[in-house]
Amino acid sequence: MSDVHPPMQAVRPVVAAALAEDLLPIGDITGSLGPETVMCAARFVSRQPGVVAGARSAGEVFSQVDPDVEVRWLLDDGIAVRPGDVVGTVRGRLRSVLTAERTALNLLGHLSGVATLTRRYAEAVAEVNPGCRIRDTRKTTPGLRALEKAAVRAGGGVNHRANLSEAVLVKDNHLGGLSVTAAVEAARRQWPGRHVEVECDSFDQLKEALAAGADMVMLDNMDAAQAAEAVSLVRGHGTTPVEVSGRITLESAAAYARAGVDFVSVGALTHSAPVLDIGLDLGTS
Amino acid sequence: MSDVHPPMQAVRPVVAAALAEDLLPIGDITGSLGPETVMCAARFVSRQPGVVAGARSAGEVFSQVDPDVEVRWLLDDGIAVRPGDVVGTVRGRLRSVLTAERTALNLLGHLSGVATLTRRYAEAVAEVNPGCRIRDTRKTTPGLRALEKAAVRAGGGVNHRANLSEAVLVKDNHLGGLSVTAAVEAARRQWPGRHVEVECDSFDQLKEALAAGADMVMLDNMDAAQAAEAVSLVRGHGTTPVEVSGRITLESAAAYARAGVDFVSVGALTHSAPVLDIGLDLGTS
Amino acid sequence: MSDVHPPMQAVRPVVAAALAEDLLPIGDITGSLGPETVMCAARFVSRQPGVVAGARSAGEVFSQVDPDVEVRWLLDDGIAVRPGDVVGTVRGRLRSVLTAERTALNLLGHLSGVATLTRRYAEAVAEVNPGCRIRDTRKTTPGLRALEKAAVRAGGGVNHRANLSEAVLVKDNHLGGLSVTAAVEAARRQWPGRHVEVECDSFDQLKEALAAGADMVMLDNMDAAQAAEAVSLVRGHGTTPVEVSGRITLESAAAYARAGVDFVSVGALTHSAPVLDIGLDLGTS
Amino acid sequence: MSDVHPPMQAVRPVVAAALAEDLLPIGDITGSLGPETVMCAARFVSRQPGVVAGARSAGEVFSQVDPDVEVRWLLDDGIAVRPGDVVGTVRGRLRSVLTAERTALNLLGHLSGVATLTRRYAEAVAEVNPGCRIRDTRKTTPGLRALEKAAVRAGGGVNHRANLSEAVLVKDNHLGGLSVTAAVEAARRQWPGRHVEVECDSFDQLKEALAAGADMVMLDNMDAAQAAEAVSLVRGHGTTPVEVSGRITLESAAAYARAGVDFVSVGALTHSAPVLDIGLDLGTS
Amino acid sequence: MSDVHPPMQAVRPVVAAALAEDLLPIGDITGSLGPETVMCAARFVSRQPGVVAGARSAGEVFSQVDPDVEVRWLLDDGIAVRPGDVVGTVRGRLRSVLTAERTALNLLGHLSGVATLTRRYAEAVAEVNPGCRIRDTRKTTPGLRALEKAAVRAGGGVNHRANLSEAVLVKDNHLGGLSVTAAVEAARRQWPGRHVEVECDSFDQLKEALAAGADMVMLDNMDAAQAAEAVSLVRGHGTTPVEVSGRITLESAAAYARAGVDFVSVGALTHSAPVLDIGLDLGTS
Amino acid sequence: MSDVHPPMQAVRPVVAAALAEDLLPIGDITGSLGPETVMCAARFVSRQPGVVAGARSAGEVFSQVDPDVEVRWLLDDGIAVRPGDVVGTVRGRLRSVLTAERTALNLLGHLSGVATLTRRYAEAVAEVNPGCRIRDTRKTTPGLRALEKAAVRAGGGVNHRANLSEAVLVKDNHLGGLSVTAAVEAARRQWPGRHVEVECDSFDQLKEALAAGADMVMLDNMDAAQAAEAVSLVRGHGTTPVEVSGRITLESAAAYARAGVDFVSVGALTHSAPVLDIGLDLGTS
Repeated sequence: MSDVHPPMQAVRPVVAAALAEDLLPIGDITGSLGPETVMCAARFVSRQPGVVAGARSAGEVFSQVDPDVEVRWLLDDGIAVRPGDVVGTVRGRLRSVLTAERTALNLLGHLSGVATLTRRYAEAVAEVNPGCRIRDTRKTTPGLRALEKAAVRAGGGVNHRANLSEAVLVKDNHLGGLSVTAAVEAARRQWPGRHVEVECDSFDQLKEALAAGADMVMLDNMDAAQAAEAVSLVRGHGTTPVEVSGRITLESAAAYARAGVDFVSVGALTHSAPVLDIGLDLGTS
Repeated sequence: MSDVHPPMQAVRPVVAAALAEDLLPIGDITGSLGPETVMCAARFVSRQPGVVAGARSAGEVFSQVDPDVEVRWLLDDGIAVRPGDVVGTVRGRLRSVLTAERTALNLLGHLSGVATLTRRYAEAVAEVNPGCRIRDTRKTTPGLRALEKAAVRAGGGVNHRANLSEAVLVKDNHLGGLSVTAAVEAARRQWPGRHVEVECDSFDQLKEALAAGADMVMLDNMDAAQAAEAVSLVRGHGTTPVEVSGRITLESAAAYARAGVDFVSVGALTHSAPVLDIGLDLGTS
Repeated sequence: MSDVHPPMQAVRPVVAAALAEDLLPIGDITGSLGPETVMCAARFVSRQPGVVAGARSAGEVFSQVDPDVEVRWLLDDGIAVRPGDVVGTVRGRLRSVLTAERTALNLLGHLSGVATLTRRYAEAVAEVNPGCRIRDTRKTTPGLRALEKAAVRAGGGVNHRANLSEAVLVKDNHLGGLSVTAAVEAARRQWPGRHVEVECDSFDQLKEALAAGADMVMLDNMDAAQAAEAVSLVRGHGTTPVEVSGRITLESAAAYARAGVDFVSVGALTHSAPVLDIGLDLGTS
Repeated sequence: MSDVHPPMQAVRPVVAAALAEDLLPIGDITGSLGPETVMCAARFVSRQPGVVAGARSAGEVFSQVDPDVEVRWLLDDGIAVRPGDVVGTVRGRLRSVLTAERTALNLLGHLSGVATLTRRYAEAVAEVNPGCRIRDTRKTTPGLRALEKAAVRAGGGVNHRANLSEAVLVKDNHLGGLSVTAAVEAARRQWPGRHVEVECDSFDQLKEALAAGADMVMLDNMDAAQAAEAVSLVRGHGTTPVEVSGRITLESAAAYARAGVDFVSVGALTHSAPVLDIGLDLGTS
Repeated sequence: MSDVHPPMQAVRPVVAAALAEDLLPIGDITGSLGPETVMCAARFVSRQPGVVAGARSAGEVFSQVDPDVEVRWLLDDGIAVRPGDVVGTVRGRLRSVLTAERTALNLLGHLSGVATLTRRYAEAVAEVNPGCRIRDTRKTTPGLRALEKAAVRAGGGVNHRANLSEAVLVKDNHLGGLSVTAAVEAARRQWPGRHVEVECDSFDQLKEALAAGADMVMLDNMDAAQAAEAVSLVRGHGTTPVEVSGRITLESAAAYARAGVDFVSVGALTHSAPVLDIGLDLGTS
Repeated sequence: MSDVHPPMQAVRPVVAAALAEDLLPIGDITGSLGPETVMCAARFVSRQPGVVAGARSAGEVFSQVDPDVEVRWLLDDGIAVRPGDVVGTVRGRLRSVLTAERTALNLLGHLSGVATLTRRYAEAVAEVNPGCRIRDTRKTTPGLRALEKAAVRAGGGVNHRANLSEAVLVKDNHLGGLSVTAAVEAARRQWPGRHVEVECDSFDQLKEALAAGADMVMLDNMDAAQAAEAVSLVRGHGTTPVEVSGRITLESAAAYARAGVDFVSVGALTHSAPVLDIGLDLGTS
C-alpha cells in the first residue's frame, strides 16, 4: 500500500505555493485578533462516504505553518471512510491550526475526491470483471499531477503514463501521414524500453497495431459491443492488453469491463472529481 | 468585461509548471516520430454548452512551447458556447500544436468548467432575484487561485476575499473566547480599511454583528426560511449586505436568493466543477 | 501585538535570497581563515533610540546559516529601545555567527528603521489627535513589501491596501473619462466586499465621492486648512473616514491630524526610512 | 559609463517578484473599472535634483506588464537631473501604464536615491581630494544588492567587495585569536588572487597589516586627525591604499578626504538613502 | 533526427542558472572596460574530432544575454565534426558575445563531449553487431539530466529510463527478501504499462526473470563469454532483449556486442565524458 | 581544512533539483514493490584510489529524501582514499536509502572525481616546485560551479575568480582596440580593490602588463621554455605572480612548474574529470 503517496519532492513546493497564495503578504489578519497562546485539539472528520487521499500533503501544510503543531493520521491514504469517521487529529496553537486549516482541507478534500471517484470506477469494473483496472490520464490539474496520480492509486486505480516523455501513444492523425506500422517501428528504434500503445478507431487499425507489435492497444470511439469484438480479435492474436478510452461513465466503464477489456482510462478521475467533504472539527485542548 | 482575465504574472508560472510536468525530461517522444516540418491548423471546439474561461492561459501554453504558433480567440472568457462552437483557432507546426494540446486543454477545460458552473448558479439566483450575486470562496485548487477566481468572474460571479491577508471574516468559535463585538472593534482598530464580515449562526449573533457595525454578515447553517427572517432583521437595521454560505446547491441557492440575500457563496464553483469538454480539432494547413 | 510579524512564508524566501547574495559561490572566505570550533556569545545592541522590527527575519538568517546557533529575543518587534539596549542574544559557532551577522543586521536595521520612522509619525499625530492613524503606502522596497508592512505595524502604523488586487482606489485622471460616481458604482458591482476609496483634489470631487458612497476619501494636494474644511464637510455628511496623502512630513502630519483627519498615509515610512543602527557585539562563550 | 547598469540576470527576477507582490492574485482591480482601449503618453519627471539610476529596471517593469508599451529613456543612469527634467517617456495602453507605474517608480526612485546620495558624497570628497573615492558596503537591501551596487556606480562611487565570497577583509576580533599576520598569510595561501584588506583600530595594527603585506588597510574608529597620521604612516611604507569606514557623514567624509585617504566607504549609500522623487506625468496620446 | 534536442522547458532554467553563476551581481567587469558599440562576428570552431550537441542550449545563452545577437548553426546536434569545422556563427555586440562566450562554450563543450563519447561507443558496437545499441544510465550530472540524455541521442545512443518514476528495474538485493518472480508480478499489478527490467547476476536469476516475463534482462557482472551464453539462453526462450551493464569500456562494449546482446548501458557517457574542445574564434564585423 | 566545503546555500537547491529529476512525478516505483519497514545499514566504499569531495552534498540528499536516515562520514572532503576504504556509513529505511542512493553517488562521484584530478595535478607540480599551485577556471559544469570549486579546494587546488563579476582578466583581443596599459588603468579606476590579471601572448605584452602594474600575469600559448624565460623576466621586475593557462596536461603542468610559474590553471579539473568510482554497499541493519 506504500505506493499510494506522492514523493515529498512534489508535495513540498505545492504546499509552499498554496500557503503563499493564502497568507501573503500580511498573514491571517482575522487570526491576529484572537489570543496568541490558546491551544486547541481538532479532528479531521469526513462528512461523506469516500476514500482518503492527501494525508501527507495536508500534514505538510501544518508543518510549514507551525512545526510545533502535531498531526496524527488515523486513516492513511487509500482507506475508505464513512460519514463521521475521524481521519486524523491535530493539536497545537489555535491560531496556527486555523491559519493552516483551509489550505490543508483544500488538498485533502480534492485529493480524497479523486481517490473516491477512482474507487467508484474501480469497484464498478471489478464487480463484473476482477481483472479490469481503472487508469488515469494526462487530463490532470496543472501543477498537481504528482499528487493526483497518487490519489488515483489510493483509490485503487493505476497510473497511465505520467507525461509525454515516458511512453509512446500513437494516434492515427497525429503523425503527419506516418502509418501505424511505421510509427511503432520508429518507436522501437528510437525509444527502446518504452511502452508503445496504439490508439485504434477501427478493426483495421487494430489489426495493424497488433501486427506491428504494439505493447497495448487503446480502443477509441467503440461501444461496448464493438469493444467485445475487439477484445476477441486481440485475444486471438496473443496477450496484448486492451484499453478503452474516451468519455467513460460509470455505466459504460462497467459495460467495457464486461466486454473483457483490461483497462478503462477515465479522464474524469482527475478533471471532474468533486471534492470529498472533510471538515476540521475544533475541540478544546 | 475586462476583469475576467487573471494577471499574466499568475498565468506564466502556472503554464511553465504545467509544461514541465508534461514534457520533462525528454519531450514529446511520440511527436518525435513524425515529420518535423508539417504545418497544421486546428480549432478549439466546445463539445458541451457552457462558458469559456482560460483563453489567455491556453494561449500562453502555445507561446511557451513554440512562439511561432499563432492562436486566435474567437470567443473570449465569459462568452457562452453551444456544442460545436469554435472558441479559437491555432496555426503552426503540427508537432508543436500536438505537444501543447493537452496542457492547453487542461487549463481551458478546467477554467471553463469553473465559469460554466458559476454561470449556472448565477442564472439560478438572478432568475428569482436579480440583485443576488454568486461569490466564490477560498476553497480553490492549490496553485490555481488566481486563475480560478478569474474564471468565476468570467462565469458571472464575483470574488470573495482572495486570501486570509486581505479581509476579516469573524467566526464565533475561532477567536478563543473573544466576542463578536470585541472582534469587530479590534478589526477596525488593527486593520482599518479592511472589509469586516461576521459569520452568524443565530439571530442573537446576527444582532450583535449588526450592532458591532460589521460590513457584511454571513448566515451559516440557516435554511431559506431562517434566511428570509434574517434578511428582514438586517433590512430593519440598515443596508448591511447579507451573504449565505455552506454546502449550497443550485436549488438552495435559488431559495436563498428568493429569501432576499445579497450574496450566495459557493465552494463548489472551484472545488467541484466538472471540466467543460472542449477539444482541439485538427485540420490541414 | 501579535500582528506585528510578517508570515514566515514571506520571510523564508527573502532570507534565502539575501544569504545567496552574500555567500555564493564560495562562502565566507575570511571566516575560513579562523578556527572552526571556537564558540561565541553575542548580543544585538541598539546604538540609537528607536523601535525594533525584524526579529523573526534576523533569526531566520541564523537558522539558515547554522541551525545550531541559538538566538533569543529579549525585545520583540514593536518595542522601543534606547541606545545600549540589548535586543537579543546569539550563541553558537563563532564562524557561523560572523557569516550570518551582516545579513541579519541588514534586515533588522532596515525593518527597525521603518518601525522607528513610523513610530515618530504615529506619535506626532497622536499627540494632537489620538484618533488619527499613520498608514503606509505601496511605495515599498521591491521584494520586501510583506516585511516592511509588518514593520509599519510594529511602529504603530496601520497598513493601507497591500496591493492593487485587494482594494479600489479611484483617482480622477486614471479612468479614461469615467466619472467618480460611475467608478464607485462600477466598483460596487464588480468588486463587492472590497473597500472603495476615492482620491479627491477638490471639494466638488469630495462631495461627489461622498454622494457616491465611497468607503473612505483621500485628500490630495490640500493643505491643513483645506483639510480641516474638508473634514468638516465630510463629518456633515456622515462617518466616512478621511485620509490625507502626498509628500507628508512630520510637521504636516501633525497639522493634518490637528485638522481632524483619520489617516495620514506616508510613503516615506518605507521608501525613505534610514536604517536603525543596531550592532552585534561579540563576547566570549 | 557602461558599467552603471546591473546585469539583466539580476533585474528580471527582481521585477517579476515586485510585480507579483503588487498584482496577485486578481490584478489591478481599480484599473479594471476604466476603458480597455484608451492609449496614453506619459513622462517620467524628476521633482527633485539628483542622479538617475534604475532605468533598465523600470523599463523591465513595463515589458513584463505589457510588451506593447514603449519606454524611451532621455537620461540614462548616472545623469544628474534638476526638478522638472524629463527622464523618459512612456507610450501605450493607459491601463497597462497605470498598472506598472508604482512598481516602476519604486525601483526608479529607490535606485536614483542611492545614486543621488552617492553623488553627494562623491562630490564632497572630490572637492577636497580628487583622488579620494566613495565606496559602498555590504549593508545593502536584501534582494537588491546587484541593483544598488549599480546605482552606487551611477552615482560616481565604486563598489567594495560584492559579498563574503570574493575578497578577504580581516578584522581583529573575528578570527578567534589568529593574528593579523597569520591571517594575511593564510589568506594568501588559501585564496591567492583575492584582494586582502585589513581593518585596523590602532597604529600598531596598521603597522602589522602593512608588514604582512595587506592589499589595502581600513581605518576603523579613527578621527580625521588620526587618519591623517595613519595615511602618513602608510605612505612612508609604500603604495598601499587606505580606506576609512564607520558611520561616515558628509562632513566627516570630506575631513577624511582632506586627511588623504584613498577610499571612504559609506553604509548609508544603500541603507539610508531617501527616495529620489520622480513622478510619472500622464498626458494624452 | 528531431529527437536529438532537449525540450526548451529544460534548457531555459539551466541557462538562466548558468548565467546567474557567471554574471551576478555586477556583470562582466572586464567587458565594461572596452567600448560599448563595437560589433563583432565570431565562429564556433571545433578543435577536435567529435560530435556536436548542445546547439540550442548555447544559442539560448546568447538570447538571454542579448536578444540582438544572432546565432546560426551550420551543424546541428548529432553531426560529426573534424578539427577546424565551423559549427556555427555569431554576430552582434562584441561585449555581449564575450559575456556569453564561456557559458555557451561550457554547455556546448560538455554536451558535445557526451555526444562524442556516445558515438565512439555506438560505433564500437555497431561495427561488430549492427543491432546492438548503446544506452545511457541515471549516472548523469545533477541538474543536467534532460540535456545530457539529449546529447546521448545526438551521439547515436538511446535513453534508458529517465528516472526512478517511469520504469521498473528489479535488483536482487534491493527488495528486502522479495523474489524476482514476486517482484515482477507486483510490478505488473501495481504499475501496468511500465517497462519491467530485471538485473541478473546468475543464470538461475536469468531463468527466473524470463519465466516471470520480464520485458528486458540486464546482465550484471558477467564477462563476454558468460554474456554469450546468457544470450543463447534468452534466445531459446523468446525475444526478450538483453542488456549488459557495469563498468563498460570501449573494448568490453565491443566484446559484449559480439556476444549478441541488444543493449550496452554505459555510465561513462554522462559521468566521465571529457569536454569536446570547441572554441569561439572572434573576427571583425 | 574548513574551506573545502561549499556553502549549504549552494548545496540545497542543487540537491533539490537533482532529486526532482530522479523522483518526479511518482517516486521510486521499483522501491514501492518491496517492504516498507525493512531497515538497512550501508557503507560508501571507494572502488578506486582518489580524493573524497561532496560529502555534504551527498548527505543532504539523504536528508531531503528521509530525515530519519543517519549518515556519518568517516573521511571528510579532501582525504585521500584507497580502493576498499569506507568513506561513510548510512543507516535507515532500506527503501529511503535506495531511493537516495543514485543521486547521492552522482554528486559524490563527480565531485570526488574533480578533487582526485586536482590532487593529481597538484602533486605533479608540487613534486618539482612546492610553491606552484593548481587553479581552476570558469570552465565548470552549468549549475555546479560552487560545488566544483569546493571540490578543487578539497583536491588541493585553489580557486581562480568565481565569475566575471569579481575580478578583471584582460585579454588582448577582447577590448576592441584598448591597449593593455589603458585597460589596466581603467580597471584600477573603475574597479579598485579588484584583482587585475593580464593574459600575455608575447614578451612585449608581458612587459607592458608589468609596466601597467598588473596584479598577476597569465602566460598564454607559451611552452615551458618560453615560460621559464617569462618567469625570469617577471622576477627581474618584481614579485608579480605568474600563471600559465591553456590546454594543460599533467606533463606540461610539471614542466611549467619546473619553469618556475606560480600558478597553473587547468580547465580539465572541472570539464573533463572522470567520476571517482564510489559505491554504496548494502548490509543488514
